[in-house]
Amino acid sequence: MGNKVKTAISPTREEDYPMWYQEVVKASEMAEKSSVRGCMVIRPWGYTLWENMVAILDAEFKETGVKNAYFPLFIPLSYLEKEAEHVEGFAKECAVVTHHKLEQGPNGGLVPAGELAEPLIVRPTSETIIGESMSRWVSSYRDLPVLINQWANVVRWEMRTRIFLRTSEFLWQEGHTAHATEEEARQRTSMMLDVYTKFVEECLAMPVVKGRKSESERFPGAVDTTCIEAMMQDKKALQAGTSHFLGQNFAKGSDIRFQDADGKDQFAWTTSWGVSTRMIGGMIMTHGDDDGVIMPPRVAPAHVVLLPIFRNDEEKKDVMEYVNSLAGELRQILYHDRKIVVEIDERDTGGARGWEWIKKGIPVRAEIGPKDVEKNAVFAARRDRTPKEKSSIARSDFINGMVEMLDEIQATLFKRAKDFKDSNTHQIDDKNKFYDFYKSKEGIHGGFVMAHWCESLDCEAKIKEDLSVTIRCIPFDSPEESGKCIYCGGKSQKRVLFAKAY
Amino acid sequence: MGNKVKTAISPTREEDYPMWYQEVVKASEMAEKSSVRGCMVIRPWGYTLWENMVAILDAEFKETGVKNAYFPLFIPLSYLEKEAEHVEGFAKECAVVTHHKLEQGPNGGLVPAGELAEPLIVRPTSETIIGESMSRWVSSYRDLPVLINQWANVVRWEMRTRIFLRTSEFLWQEGHTAHATEEEARQRTSMMLDVYTKFVEECLAMPVVKGRKSESERFPGAVDTTCIEAMMQDKKALQAGTSHFLGQNFAKGSDIRFQDADGKDQFAWTTSWGVSTRMIGGMIMTHGDDDGVIMPPRVAPAHVVLLPIFRNDEEKKDVMEYVNSLAGELRQILYHDRKIVVEIDERDTGGARGWEWIKKGIPVRAEIGPKDVEKNAVFAARRDRTPKEKSSIARSDFINGMVEMLDEIQATLFKRAKDFKDSNTHQIDDKNKFYDFYKSKEGIHGGFVMAHWCESLDCEAKIKEDLSVTIRCIPFDSPEESGKCIYCGGKSQKRVLFAKAY
Repeated sequence: MGNKVKTAISPTREEDYPMWYQEVVKASEMAEKSSVRGCMVIRPWGYTLWENMVAILDAEFKETGVKNAYFPLFIPLSYLEKEAEHVEGFAKECAVVTHHKLEQGPNGGLVPAGELAEPLIVRPTSETIIGESMSRWVSSYRDLPVLINQWANVVRWEMRTRIFLRTSEFLWQEGHTAHATEEEARQRTSMMLDVYTKFVEECLAMPVVKGRKSESERFPGAVDTTCIEAMMQDKKALQAGTSHFLGQNFAKGSDIRFQDADGKDQFAWTTSWGVSTRMIGGMIMTHGDDDGVIMPPRVAPAHVVLLPIFRNDEEKKDVMEYVNSLAGELRQILYHDRKIVVEIDERDTGGARGWEWIKKGIPVRAEIGPKDVEKNAVFAARRDRTPKEKSSIARSDFINGMVEMLDEIQATLFKRAKDFKDSNTHQIDDKNKFYDFYKSKEGIHGGFVMAHWCESLDCEAKIKEDLSVTIRCIPFDSPEESGKCIYCGGKSQKRVLFAKAY
Repeated sequence: MGNKVKTAISPTREEDYPMWYQEVVKASEMAEKSSVRGCMVIRPWGYTLWENMVAILDAEFKETGVKNAYFPLFIPLSYLEKEAEHVEGFAKECAVVTHHKLEQGPNGGLVPAGELAEPLIVRPTSETIIGESMSRWVSSYRDLPVLINQWANVVRWEMRTRIFLRTSEFLWQEGHTAHATEEEARQRTSMMLDVYTKFVEECLAMPVVKGRKSESERFPGAVDTTCIEAMMQDKKALQAGTSHFLGQNFAKGSDIRFQDADGKDQFAWTTSWGVSTRMIGGMIMTHGDDDGVIMPPRVAPAHVVLLPIFRNDEEKKDVMEYVNSLAGELRQILYHDRKIVVEIDERDTGGARGWEWIKKGIPVRAEIGPKDVEKNAVFAARRDRTPKEKSSIARSDFINGMVEMLDEIQATLFKRAKDFKDSNTHQIDDKNKFYDFYKSKEGIHGGFVMAHWCESLDCEAKIKEDLSVTIRCIPFDSPEESGKCIYCGGKSQKRVLFAKAY
């Protein structure tokens, strides 16, 4: 290791980013691989984070008139087939239930029995099964819009899995709405992408690029897929959320029809939109450092850990009294609609205890020994600074300044990520430069490139083949601008966002 | 129908209780059957109820130190086999995943492909998969207790399904804990049953009998199953929650071992406990009447509906202003940790609108027309009284008395259900009387009988065979008392609770 600073996570991000990610997840005790292929166990520290994310998003959805419901886990194969592109998109990676019991097999062990007449697919997404309900609920324009959301587990049998980022089973929400007009459905698509953008930027402190997917990257069956794309610290892109305008495709497949105000029979216009536990992986990869996870305070499972220090029972009594009363006061404070969550860790583990909390990414740590009690102070550290930056703060300042400190940490994380993204986003107009950029050693994956594209599927496919670089989106804020396609030199009116991606 | 009062639900409870139940569920728009065998769609009115139930229970669990986590949906067959009774208990009714993709079949349609080396079972319960994690997390007594809960969907391939009560897929929570000592695990088992009892009685307004299951009714693999049993209006019993002491059975199967304080290797003692969407069915069957569902205010999806009445735009303006300001004030009021939820239904549907809310079971309805505005009053009705009992209440009294009114409704529902249960619970000591009781026409299913039992599996089995009556539990408060077994006349020290059951 030479004269490098010792870090809590090994390898470091620079040494081996994918391995660093695995180690960070493990060391934080957020999640772990299970023995079931591609499925993860989300441990309490990771699940509490998810609960906080769910609570904020759920309130935002409801604010827009959406209500939660629950639909079957299983989708009959014939339903999935109602939309041709849709089934094609998911057929290659789905868990198929074929039997409904187990019986003694010829060799003594249990084997599947009771074969089903029609195989059931464990939902990879629920457009078709929810469409079936909507077709029953909707008959008049007065029944529209239908605004439904479901929090659920879904399964996509991924070949290469990575915890949180790509797992066979994951948790998500899927919103499904039906509308009387195309315009209203398009507005809903855009409204929900805005909800995601606000959440991901303000709560997860991840800056994103909003845009539309190119045809080849669309959700199977969608007319338009809009998305938000974030940049990880290895400069690769991560899709953090999608909102689809489905046109009348699924309404036709599921027969969602209504009589309009003029008595005319019409197909409804539908949308769907989702974010998943994948966001957790993105958050870790955006903010984490070589000492572990860094939790944005807005969603952190806990905000503050108090670490009492004592050598004997007498000291313990004084210190714990001080710590408990401090915790009590902090827990009264409201931080963005949530009471401040305080952990007290009185285990006697030497330095290990403090490092565990660093690896878990808790925003604020405070050591409290007999001298701090005497001075009526705490010895505090912030997770957005180096582990050694600790300072003595008067008890009252610590309490009264807590909300501000957490907001500062949140802002620092966002600014850091935004600066990183901005400084790794380039405009390139020359094909050789473009190819060099992604093939060069400088930077692990080059970063984001805004380049012109002629809208040909062919150019897009060639770039993907040559460089594993894809069009992440056509950013909404990309101005009209004449240029030449980065691949073929053909005419282009807009730059699009290229990157390697998770 | 003769000169009977017209009811919103047909058939009435007396005419056909099972059909009444189906109609009530449908008319309330709480849930509906899906086209997937045995699976239900929980609609927003039903799901919001579930969300309220989840919120209260979740807070109670956390109060006892339990944290939420998430484990895989799929359980490898070999895991399920780790506990012999367990796998036997679930083998007859489980969804089996055997393939991981779909391919074009010989006849053109898609068929399952990519056969798995080992079949995966969609979790019917998660003892074995969670045990696998616990075995990795626990190595010293310092790692104990582990206190985990999971909110999840589970699948049991039931042959005869009934919405909420018995569905192939249902939503539930399953708590799983591991402890260093038998005593601590037994205490946890009992603590969680107390949490359930408090919730079901105080929030769902369902009085229950707490007790221990007889051996034949135990959870597969448990040493002891404790439960709460409620009485439905057809006098049948419904198990509303269970808490299992699993001894070391699952710890041995999953190898959950730890070194105790003396350095000795020990197996942990585990518990599991769960309640499910089944409780919703129980709640409906406990309180519902011939006009539909009656929601206990503590968990009701909404507390009050305001029904504006107007004949023209001018009236509409005045009435809606009044209604909106009234709703605004009501929504500021806290009712048991939750702000009062107010619906405003301005649809012009004649009388149908009011009846829809009656069928949905909203606790309080208030009609507001121009005259009410003039009088500064509302014309209110309570769901625990007959639909025609409406009265004019001054606006301020309506607002200031809302919490009390809701508490009164809650108390009325509980008292009504308790009186019903008590008056339909009998002590019977004579075998003929016992048989007559369950075979007689009086009452649909007789009710609860407290009778002596000699603890022989045989007597229990015979009664079940003859009458479809089972021992629901051995109530904790059943006093020591010498008596004779109701079946064989053998010695008994305690009465147990018999009933027909869902």
